[in-house]
Amino acid sequence: MADKQNDGTKARALRTGRMEAFSDGVFAIAITLLVLEIGVPEGSGDDLWGALLDQWSSYLAYLVSFATIGAVWFAHTVITEALSGATSVLIRVNLLLLLVVAFLPFPTVLLSEYVGEPDAERIAVTVYGLNLLLASVLVSTLWRYANRAGLVREDLTDREVRALSSRLTPSLVSYAVVIVLGIFLPVVAVLGYLLIAIYLLLPLRELLRQYIHSGQER
Amino acid sequence: MADKQNDGTKARALRTGRMEAFSDGVFAIAITLLVLEIGVPEGSGDDLWGALLDQWSSYLAYLVSFATIGAVWFAHTVITEALSGATSVLIRVNLLLLLVVAFLPFPTVLLSEYVGEPDAERIAVTVYGLNLLLASVLVSTLWRYANRAGLVREDLTDREVRALSSRLTPSLVSYAVVIVLGIFLPVVAVLGYLLIAIYLLLPLRELLRQYIHSGQER
Amino acid sequence: MADKQNDGTKARALRTGRMEAFSDGVFAIAITLLVLEIGVPEGSGDDLWGALLDQWSSYLAYLVSFATIGAVWFAHTVITEALSGATSVLIRVNLLLLLVVAFLPFPTVLLSEYVGEPDAERIAVTVYGLNLLLASVLVSTLWRYANRAGLVREDLTDREVRALSSRLTPSLVSYAVVIVLGIFLPVVAVLGYLLIAIYLLLPLRELLRQYIHSGQER
Amino acid sequence: MADKQNDGTKARALRTGRMEAFSDGVFAIAITLLVLEIGVPEGSGDDLWGALLDQWSSYLAYLVSFATIGAVWFAHTVITEALSGATSVLIRVNLLLLLVVAFLPFPTVLLSEYVGEPDAERIAVTVYGLNLLLASVLVSTLWRYANRAGLVREDLTDREVRALSSRLTPSLVSYAVVIVLGIFLPVVAVLGYLLIAIYLLLPLRELLRQYIHSGQER
Repeated sequence: MADKQNDGTKARALRTGRMEAFSDGVFAIAITLLVLEIGVPEGSGDDLWGALLDQWSSYLAYLVSFATIGAVWFAHTVITEALSGATSVLIRVNLLLLLVVAFLPFPTVLLSEYVGEPDAERIAVTVYGLNLLLASVLVSTLWRYANRAGLVREDLTDREVRALSSRLTPSLVSYAVVIVLGIFLPVVAVLGYLLIAIYLLLPLRELLRQYIHSGQER
Repeated sequence: MADKQNDGTKARALRTGRMEAFSDGVFAIAITLLVLEIGVPEGSGDDLWGALLDQWSSYLAYLVSFATIGAVWFAHTVITEALSGATSVLIRVNLLLLLVVAFLPFPTVLLSEYVGEPDAERIAVTVYGLNLLLASVLVSTLWRYANRAGLVREDLTDREVRALSSRLTPSLVSYAVVIVLGIFLPVVAVLGYLLIAIYLLLPLRELLRQYIHSGQER
Repeated sequence: MADKQNDGTKARALRTGRMEAFSDGVFAIAITLLVLEIGVPEGSGDDLWGALLDQWSSYLAYLVSFATIGAVWFAHTVITEALSGATSVLIRVNLLLLLVVAFLPFPTVLLSEYVGEPDAERIAVTVYGLNLLLASVLVSTLWRYANRAGLVREDLTDREVRALSSRLTPSLVSYAVVIVLGIFLPVVAVLGYLLIAIYLLLPLRELLRQYIHSGQER
Repeated sequence: MADKQNDGTKARALRTGRMEAFSDGVFAIAITLLVLEIGVPEGSGDDLWGALLDQWSSYLAYLVSFATIGAVWFAHTVITEALSGATSVLIRVNLLLLLVVAFLPFPTVLLSEYVGEPDAERIAVTVYGLNLLLASVLVSTLWRYANRAGLVREDLTDREVRALSSRLTPSLVSYAVVIVLGIFLPVVAVLGYLLIAIYLLLPLRELLRQYIHSGQER
């Protein structure tokens, strides 16, 4: 908006297409690389079930990170879907978000490696949680910047814009709470991160709405 | 459909574009990462042919997983091609499918590592088969949900919709049968998974139809 | 074409969009994964230049494989650009091509590992060459099938179609010749593969044509 | 342009779509693979904070490479956005750029491995810097070639074209200066590369312009 007014041409207004394609690529790779971190137990021919079950922390970390990146991707989709164009500032905020998302495989391995070890566990869970919080903060920043820069499509109603805004806030608070919790109860915090991701992904509201709706129709 | 009726706007109806791009990314990465799991035999200068042939289980696992992901991707393409839009529920079902597909490289290495070891072999083949079955169930769920939620394009005839539905069913039954078979004959089960994937990919019906058609034309 | 005539609807004619996106993904990942195979020399603080130069075979293999995948991608682009649609047979031929391209990182490491070792070298170069030949055969098959199935856009002139056909043939012959050469002179064969890839990529004809053209204009 | 005049058809003019999709894929993968190079400290349960902080060179290298690939991707987006079409020469120059970008993870590990070791450090930093310089040269070449071949969209004003040209030049000079600096002060050079990337990414001009603009409006 500001860009257009400034030099009077449309040439500076960037399409969101490339930004979406690049982001989709980074999200898709980060989410698929996670599996590389789950090592296959070697030389466990005698008791493979046992060896596989011993790796529960790897599967849990895989699940939490997959769900979280999935939730971030989904929020990203809803946001860019609501935009009419991009500015170079928006693209940079987006790159910061991708930096944090692409980094997530690192704390994921850290977590799966150190869950169970008394002191290290606490550090690993905290580092992991800070990464999730940061991703969440940047998703929120992306939307608020776009909103203030006048990049939101004009056919969206105020109610829809507010709905989207309020939908992005609770995860910030939840992550902050669970990070503090993780200092005392690290494993509980991991389950907390899983619950947040599932909450973000689960179509509770949609299912509820459809339920109410089909009730009204009768 | 339900979404649109509910709040009277089209804004909530999501394009399938981002979902397709993200899914294509995950499918493409999962299918290409498989090769990383085939280790190059080291220090086998004396008998490289022998060392390469000893790794037959790795090539077989690569082939089966590649064909399976290829078949899932193809079914996914046909399904999304038939959709007029997406809902947030559809996107979540799709994320579950991607979770299972992105996980496949893990049981693939497990398989190539433990084929040949008496007990472990049975466990590896079963874990592998369950993963394939789960992917197949989720592809089927994706289509049935889309169908029931009224997301299928209106220009598709009932016959075409039924054809697609019936095409997704047999693989479920086959996978279940081969998983049970694998408890007794693990290696035979791996060949079974290969046959299912080839069956899903091979254009038997199309070739047959074209053959009949060109016969009628004469 | 045959599909359309068969059931009288357009619904069976598939867009090439998804096939292109998925193929681009696989090509991009295969070409970018190659670098992971170049190990960083460890514990060579004393003579890092020496240790880096010792790895010449890794850089050469990286370069040849990168150029080859680049050339295959480029041929793929030109082919799909010329198509008006896809059939399910075309998509399967395409999956076979992707199987071979996604496999290339494996013989690439094999090559960089065994160049220099008397007997193993010959085997590694032959396996590598067969992979390149197979990729080339499948690119050619893709185009010939599309051509015969009537999938080529109608606005292309016969001359353009013939030009594309004849452009895909020489690489088949060259690869076959260099594979035989590689049995006697393995390292020379690797340089041969590099030359073929560079030939496929270098815009010799275009540069020549532009040169002649700018000459005529004066 | 030259292509079109030559054979009188539009068929030879290539869309930029495939080139963009393939490049986005390579950029996205290269930028996301970087994290795989950061090893998780193993067996450091006693002092995980210490072990994590010891890896500062890995994080620094990750950050610099991420910012650099991000900046190259952004410049690439702005360039292709300004093009009306592609020629096969442009596609080859683009492949060269991708070769260099896809290679970057290698000098990145080299850097994080050898920072701190007296002699090796200098070599690692120089190799790293040459890679960045090469990427920068090729981005610049891409734009200058497109410009001379008449591929730039006609609705762009001369001022906009010149602005883009001058924006791509300073990084070349900066990289050359910092490479020479790196021979004497390797670690300072790494910070220099970070500063260049941040400068390329930071929306200094845009923020300034918006600031001036909002001042004028009052």
